[in-house]
Amino acid sequence: TRHTEETKENRELHIKTTLRELVIYIVFLVILCIVTFGMTSSTMYYYTKVMSELFLDGQFKDTKNTFRGMTTMHDFWRFAEGPLIDGLYWEKWYNGRNVSDDELGYIFYENKLLGVPRIRQLKVRNDSCTVHEDFANEIKACYDAYAETLEDQNSFGLMNGSAWTYQSEEELDGSGHWGLISSYAGGGFVQNLATTKAQSRHTIEVLKQNLWLDRGTRVIFIDFTVYNANINLFCVIRLLVEFPATGGAIPSWSFRTVKLIRYVTATDYFIMACEAIFILFILYYMVEEGLEIRKHKLSYFKSFWNILDILVIIIACCCAVFNIYRTIEVNDKLDTLLDQPDEYVDFESLSYWQVVFNSALAIMVFFAWVKVFKYISFNKTMTQLSSTLARCAKDLAGFAVMFFIIFLAFAQLGYLIFGTQVKDFSSFENAIFTLFRIILGDFNFHELEQANRVLGPIYFILYVFFVFFVLLNMFLAIINDTYSEVKADISSQKNEFEVADYFKKGYQK
Amino acid sequence: TRHTEETKENRELHIKTTLRELVIYIVFLVILCIVTFGMTSSTMYYYTKVMSELFLDGQFKDTKNTFRGMTTMHDFWRFAEGPLIDGLYWEKWYNGRNVSDDELGYIFYENKLLGVPRIRQLKVRNDSCTVHEDFANEIKACYDAYAETLEDQNSFGLMNGSAWTYQSEEELDGSGHWGLISSYAGGGFVQNLATTKAQSRHTIEVLKQNLWLDRGTRVIFIDFTVYNANINLFCVIRLLVEFPATGGAIPSWSFRTVKLIRYVTATDYFIMACEAIFILFILYYMVEEGLEIRKHKLSYFKSFWNILDILVIIIACCCAVFNIYRTIEVNDKLDTLLDQPDEYVDFESLSYWQVVFNSALAIMVFFAWVKVFKYISFNKTMTQLSSTLARCAKDLAGFAVMFFIIFLAFAQLGYLIFGTQVKDFSSFENAIFTLFRIILGDFNFHELEQANRVLGPIYFILYVFFVFFVLLNMFLAIINDTYSEVKADISSQKNEFEVADYFKKGYQK
Amino acid sequence: TRHTEETKENRELHIKTTLRELVIYIVFLVILCIVTFGMTSSTMYYYTKVMSELFLDGQFKDTKNTFRGMTTMHDFWRFAEGPLIDGLYWEKWYNGRNVSDDELGYIFYENKLLGVPRIRQLKVRNDSCTVHEDFANEIKACYDAYAETLEDQNSFGLMNGSAWTYQSEEELDGSGHWGLISSYAGGGFVQNLATTKAQSRHTIEVLKQNLWLDRGTRVIFIDFTVYNANINLFCVIRLLVEFPATGGAIPSWSFRTVKLIRYVTATDYFIMACEAIFILFILYYMVEEGLEIRKHKLSYFKSFWNILDILVIIIACCCAVFNIYRTIEVNDKLDTLLDQPDEYVDFESLSYWQVVFNSALAIMVFFAWVKVFKYISFNKTMTQLSSTLARCAKDLAGFAVMFFIIFLAFAQLGYLIFGTQVKDFSSFENAIFTLFRIILGDFNFHELEQANRVLGPIYFILYVFFVFFVLLNMFLAIINDTYSEVKADISSQKNEFEVADYFKKGYQK
Amino acid sequence: TRHTEETKENRELHIKTTLRELVIYIVFLVILCIVTFGMTSSTMYYYTKVMSELFLDGQFKDTKNTFRGMTTMHDFWRFAEGPLIDGLYWEKWYNGRNVSDDELGYIFYENKLLGVPRIRQLKVRNDSCTVHEDFANEIKACYDAYAETLEDQNSFGLMNGSAWTYQSEEELDGSGHWGLISSYAGGGFVQNLATTKAQSRHTIEVLKQNLWLDRGTRVIFIDFTVYNANINLFCVIRLLVEFPATGGAIPSWSFRTVKLIRYVTATDYFIMACEAIFILFILYYMVEEGLEIRKHKLSYFKSFWNILDILVIIIACCCAVFNIYRTIEVNDKLDTLLDQPDEYVDFESLSYWQVVFNSALAIMVFFAWVKVFKYISFNKTMTQLSSTLARCAKDLAGFAVMFFIIFLAFAQLGYLIFGTQVKDFSSFENAIFTLFRIILGDFNFHELEQANRVLGPIYFILYVFFVFFVLLNMFLAIINDTYSEVKADISSQKNEFEVADYFKKGYQK
Ligand SMILES: [Ca+2]
Repeated sequence: TRHTEETKENRELHIKTTLRELVIYIVFLVILCIVTFGMTSSTMYYYTKVMSELFLDGQFKDTKNTFRGMTTMHDFWRFAEGPLIDGLYWEKWYNGRNVSDDELGYIFYENKLLGVPRIRQLKVRNDSCTVHEDFANEIKACYDAYAETLEDQNSFGLMNGSAWTYQSEEELDGSGHWGLISSYAGGGFVQNLATTKAQSRHTIEVLKQNLWLDRGTRVIFIDFTVYNANINLFCVIRLLVEFPATGGAIPSWSFRTVKLIRYVTATDYFIMACEAIFILFILYYMVEEGLEIRKHKLSYFKSFWNILDILVIIIACCCAVFNIYRTIEVNDKLDTLLDQPDEYVDFESLSYWQVVFNSALAIMVFFAWVKVFKYISFNKTMTQLSSTLARCAKDLAGFAVMFFIIFLAFAQLGYLIFGTQVKDFSSFENAIFTLFRIILGDFNFHELEQANRVLGPIYFILYVFFVFFVLLNMFLAIINDTYSEVKADISSQKNEFEVADYFKKGYQK
Repeated sequence: TRHTEETKENRELHIKTTLRELVIYIVFLVILCIVTFGMTSSTMYYYTKVMSELFLDGQFKDTKNTFRGMTTMHDFWRFAEGPLIDGLYWEKWYNGRNVSDDELGYIFYENKLLGVPRIRQLKVRNDSCTVHEDFANEIKACYDAYAETLEDQNSFGLMNGSAWTYQSEEELDGSGHWGLISSYAGGGFVQNLATTKAQSRHTIEVLKQNLWLDRGTRVIFIDFTVYNANINLFCVIRLLVEFPATGGAIPSWSFRTVKLIRYVTATDYFIMACEAIFILFILYYMVEEGLEIRKHKLSYFKSFWNILDILVIIIACCCAVFNIYRTIEVNDKLDTLLDQPDEYVDFESLSYWQVVFNSALAIMVFFAWVKVFKYISFNKTMTQLSSTLARCAKDLAGFAVMFFIIFLAFAQLGYLIFGTQVKDFSSFENAIFTLFRIILGDFNFHELEQANRVLGPIYFILYVFFVFFVLLNMFLAIINDTYSEVKADISSQKNEFEVADYFKKGYQK
Repeated sequence: TRHTEETKENRELHIKTTLRELVIYIVFLVILCIVTFGMTSSTMYYYTKVMSELFLDGQFKDTKNTFRGMTTMHDFWRFAEGPLIDGLYWEKWYNGRNVSDDELGYIFYENKLLGVPRIRQLKVRNDSCTVHEDFANEIKACYDAYAETLEDQNSFGLMNGSAWTYQSEEELDGSGHWGLISSYAGGGFVQNLATTKAQSRHTIEVLKQNLWLDRGTRVIFIDFTVYNANINLFCVIRLLVEFPATGGAIPSWSFRTVKLIRYVTATDYFIMACEAIFILFILYYMVEEGLEIRKHKLSYFKSFWNILDILVIIIACCCAVFNIYRTIEVNDKLDTLLDQPDEYVDFESLSYWQVVFNSALAIMVFFAWVKVFKYISFNKTMTQLSSTLARCAKDLAGFAVMFFIIFLAFAQLGYLIFGTQVKDFSSFENAIFTLFRIILGDFNFHELEQANRVLGPIYFILYVFFVFFVLLNMFLAIINDTYSEVKADISSQKNEFEVADYFKKGYQK
Repeated sequence: TRHTEETKENRELHIKTTLRELVIYIVFLVILCIVTFGMTSSTMYYYTKVMSELFLDGQFKDTKNTFRGMTTMHDFWRFAEGPLIDGLYWEKWYNGRNVSDDELGYIFYENKLLGVPRIRQLKVRNDSCTVHEDFANEIKACYDAYAETLEDQNSFGLMNGSAWTYQSEEELDGSGHWGLISSYAGGGFVQNLATTKAQSRHTIEVLKQNLWLDRGTRVIFIDFTVYNANINLFCVIRLLVEFPATGGAIPSWSFRTVKLIRYVTATDYFIMACEAIFILFILYYMVEEGLEIRKHKLSYFKSFWNILDILVIIIACCCAVFNIYRTIEVNDKLDTLLDQPDEYVDFESLSYWQVVFNSALAIMVFFAWVKVFKYISFNKTMTQLSSTLARCAKDLAGFAVMFFIIFLAFAQLGYLIFGTQVKDFSSFENAIFTLFRIILGDFNFHELEQANRVLGPIYFILYVFFVFFVLLNMFLAIINDTYSEVKADISSQKNEFEVADYFKKGYQK
């Protein structure tokens, strides 16, 4: 974006350089879109769907409950003995015939289970909190909500084997996890399952009979990774059951479908070529922006567009570096895996970073699209519209502040009144999201009413009246007024030399 | 807010005092937020959720129905024999082993059942209403809808024990309850359950075999309280089944998760300190406002901001007083409880007042936030926006009156036409809420259509056309017009000395 | 409304008469509200709910399906043998004991079954349509969709008893019914059930074994009425299963909760008094409007308010007449019933007219509320708002015409493209309602997409863009512009003598 | 539309011709509506509903799952052995009696199954993709996603019969199908079912026992057609189960209810007459437009209304031609069918074209309605409104471009971030539709939040703020401003001679 500022005197030259810049930018954007769209496909969604339905919607044998609906510790064992084992080991065809040895170890007959699944639990000590003096005689043990410092690291139960003795995060080479209720460390009591159905069932039975889960248990992880060679995708699966200090069980899960091995088919190599071109573009922009920074010094950073440029470049660099790291790391893991097929292999953190990488790239593309607006004002209507938005930005921002003070006051009120009863108000963030959703018309009035039959409806009606009927209309009033002004201003200006004229002129020559 | 009015001549001084006031106010607000946010936590929601899922979603053994879906008297017994007993007494681990004696009496192995649960019913007399003369020969008994004056207080059935003889509200030391259909007195026929599963099951069986519930029964309460020492929370549970005079059963419930013992952990003591500071602030504001009232007399009450101040102070005082009462009362109850562990202990009304206390505090915080707007007009954009809102307030209020006349006319029409068929129109209030929800897009058109195939759609379309298409836009028109006026007014004024200038000046020195 | 026109010269006098008129009108409105609110109560909704849940949500023994989910002829028998019989005859208490003889014949032990239920079917002839010549050899019988002229009136099956021989509408003293698929006549093949469970079950078994329902059957009605003496309400129940010519079964139902015996309790007599006063008011207004008509002749009918007056009076008169007819008719029916308790008694048409009566009254109240606007412009803000609405009415109506042309074009397009697949577009009316609901955000995009993967999304996006983004905003533009005009006009007028001044003056005297 | 341009001088004459044109046009429109409304009826929806509920909602015997909920290969066999066979062959009445021979072969006793159903599968080769070298030793077979070039055409299993040997699209006289995951060719391995339940069950059992479906199977089709003589409608049914390369099963379906035999009843012949008149109209318009094109040459195509005329004429011609083709083709098929009742008859592509025909006609009617706007500006209000829309069209289009750039940037961002987790963002198109639906308030926030707990809510709030709060209001600002302008312009013009005047004048004569 070097030339833009310098050539204001000569409008024709200015348009010429703008157009050249625009053409280059469009090529850049096309390459970028190819790279990112090449990165994902609908197949990835179907993979996630198929795997998650298998484990989350499989019914328990007796209660017909599912993993999603789990509410007690007992349900965990029902899940482990039923849908988990049945989902992991497909040893028979639909007509009852055993699958051949070659076909063993594939979920849905298609998805290779990499290594063996691992079950891990974390516990807290029975003296991790203080019982109020009135109850001190009655209540002997107190298990606080999970915190790393409160972890119970003592062996228990059978006292032997990894299931009954604690291993630290370093020993397990694990990583932390941000659960629904708390953040958990990477250590704990660990039990690997086997490669056959019968053995795994036995392992689980032993754990259950010896009360592996007890009052101190705060979370249990089930981790495994599957690989589908047909479509060259990994699905890294973590099933999580949190046991809050309140009793009961809260299930959650992550199914990360990632393409860890990137270059296999012909299409993959085409994407690779585009990535190379993209890197060249980034180098070109780095040089250009570098020159500009040297020239304009600090004033460079006052332009919104320049900051956008810098952001895009930084994200691109990080992504490139990660791409290299990923390739090395995956090779490493696979080597280990192929040597020891009966061991657990941890793809958890690798898949996490891959998802971060994808998100970063996605955000970069979004910024790149926003930058198109820099070049868009090539005819009068467009100028009029974009300058309306630009001019009312300050007023809108000012009003947004006022709007959000009221909004947050309502959110806090809702959180404090309904927080203990209604999921949508169970935390301050949730209350904010819920109030946004009310504006769009997506909410559950009956829950609010049930939580508090007097304040619920009053709260709802006041909110709708003040925010939906009154405040929201201020946004419109601001935009409407600014548009009228801008239109009046522009119609009073003399016509400037426009892009359209440039083309017309070129055509007439 | 003393100085604001006096110093209009000297704008610089005015800004200085305003800024000082603002800083003090922000400190006050921060303290207030700490106190209220310290009062609640997401754990409370999880506690409510876990306990309510246990009792409300547990399936009956034969019909697979749940408490939520209860429709007949028979369902009540199915519930009592199944999910209620199973939910209250956890005497076995998931592997079938009995829990140790220390661990007996804990729901989910974590939540101590305080005392024993109590079942209570209220009946009406069989001559509580007049049968129309045409049916007088056919229909011998008539049981009216519940009203305290119609209560049947005669012993019945086995004629012995509290289950079969009436006790008044005073004898039971109970309190009334506002149900879905009616408000109920605190007396009735009462049966306490036992501390073991087998005994409780037997008690329920005896009641069922002797037709404890009959045509006169209008409501049945199941009350108990659990305490979780891990997180220091009480959950006061009331399950309610109303038997309307129409036949059938209408279940409802309240799960009140409250922190009755407030100061146990270190964090609790930090909150206590903040509460002390808060009390000091309130004293400071009381003195200040007192001085102002003395000075301005009645004209003091003409300012919206002053009334807000008064409201905040009054609520704060009430809350402080309740805080003391709660501490004494809880101690009292717990002493009784620990002496007689086999008795029922009533936390119902205590928890009710605790919820009122929380709500009052929440509303106070909301008012405190609204007062921020008093200080907000420190730059031109803000002034412009806030004076737009202030100036159109009168017109908006005027239009709101007209809007609500039409609105209420529609609500009454909907109530009278669809009231007997559609839940959303089953009472006048419900009709009002439903019409509000239609504006936001949350409604069930098919129910309306099914209730009346001709008037349903016509009503819906007329309402949407007149209220959504036409009237709602008047709000916008009013705001839009006022904004244009205000903007024109302000741009014609000379620039006043602003807060920004004040800082600039200070900076230049 | 006599004086309004005449006294324009003397504004003070005008205000005085307006105020007097207003006060009288408010008294009238209050009486009217008492009458109508006295007519309905939430109990009526609960009654409908309890009865409909009993019959519509009772599960079949084997398939666990319900009346609502019925899809085949076989399902009808499952319903008749299960939920219907169990719902009609409550011969045991929840503990298995038989109910006493006095208590026999009550649904939910509370609701007297009046007479016996009746099952009625209508059939079409097997030559009611022409088979296309190509299939003439293959397909011998053709049963058209139901029409009264195509009815099969021949005896069939066992050939004896009312179940197997046709009775006409006159013989049965029945009335037609407007079903989902067609309108049905009041005759048919009729089978009354018995007063005991065992007998009724046998009756149904005989019908089933002899193929009472066959290919020609187009509809089956189950009719009965229950009376609850506790709350003095009748519930007239009709369960309907239509068998369209396509095969399959379409269930529908009506539960009409009506108060056929009106004056029993003290409250009823208070309402009666109000009704008397209301009649007096109506007489007063009749005289007044009569005088005005005589005076102004045809020009009287040019005023919107006068037409409203006439409407209110006409509806009031009709309702009064019906009220008398109802009282007589109900007495008649009940006499028959008490004489012959084993016969079917038809409350169907009586309850229908009662519902019409209620609706008419409801609409009258709505008109009465609208008339309040005639008196509302007593201060400047109100005048400004109401004259904005009045002035933009013409433009709005003009635009509404344009809007609805586009709207109907979209509705027809949707009906023709998606009509065969999507319920929401299955008829032209449904398409109109659906498009309205899309504007409010209540719709099912996935159904549209599934019906036609190309045209579905295109249709949806075009509709939203043109109607929601563009056309809807025209309503706002019209209102906004008119409001600005009116405000400018009014602020340029000199202040008129207002109601507020009138009070002020009165106060100063 | 010949005369419109020529007669501008004489306004009165102009109005006269306009009125004549309008009257003719209204007749045309009425005829067109009769033709199209005569083409469809609510019965068609009921037919689709009844047939789809039968096959899609029938429960499997053991798992109680349905076709809609199918997730594994095993589920396919559960469906084939249960709901499919039970739905196709109705050999018993509800009381257990066998149906007579005449009545055999009718679904719901009403719908003749034409020929026999056919099951067809498509497979891919086991070397259709490359396994990454690291896994080459472990994973021997690789089955790619379906593509026509990767089809496995080798015989397998029992090696005999059409079920085990490949037939090409030409041999089967089939056609391709656009599935959810891929587009499929018309060839494959084919198995016809029999005309009796027992035989068909046996056929399916043989396929299942010999592993007819294996890892290579990518899709399975079940095709059959039923004909209902009562209502003269065909329902062409295709049930589809896709087995993606990820494992699992994705069911889909099409139920095309079409009227292939058009002229049977008296009403049909009335429609036929209307169609003839319609053809005459089209010929008249063809001539007229031809004359205009000859006169105005290329400038003819600059008018929006002329292009609309051309479009209507072209669609009408195509439809007329198809109508003739359909009649011939159906006769042909039916002859084949009646000769060989045990063969499969393919109505698939015929029904597809019939649906295209219906859609084309529907679109034509929509265009015809839009043309009404050409004649609508016959009074001042209408002129004002339609010229507002016309004048702001350019600005709206300009802004729509800007709007959609931001919109698409958000869609791409959503697709890339949430695409692997959330169905609503699983493809770029879905993301676009989802963002549209968010504006209307129809979305699932919780899914977004679960997919990414940080970016989900941020994305949602940014989208709502920028697009719903800000950009959407620009549409309104543009329309509002233009309306004010137009109103000002028109009120400054002198009153033109209007249609109303024309009528007034005619009346005065
Ligand atoms: Ca909405």
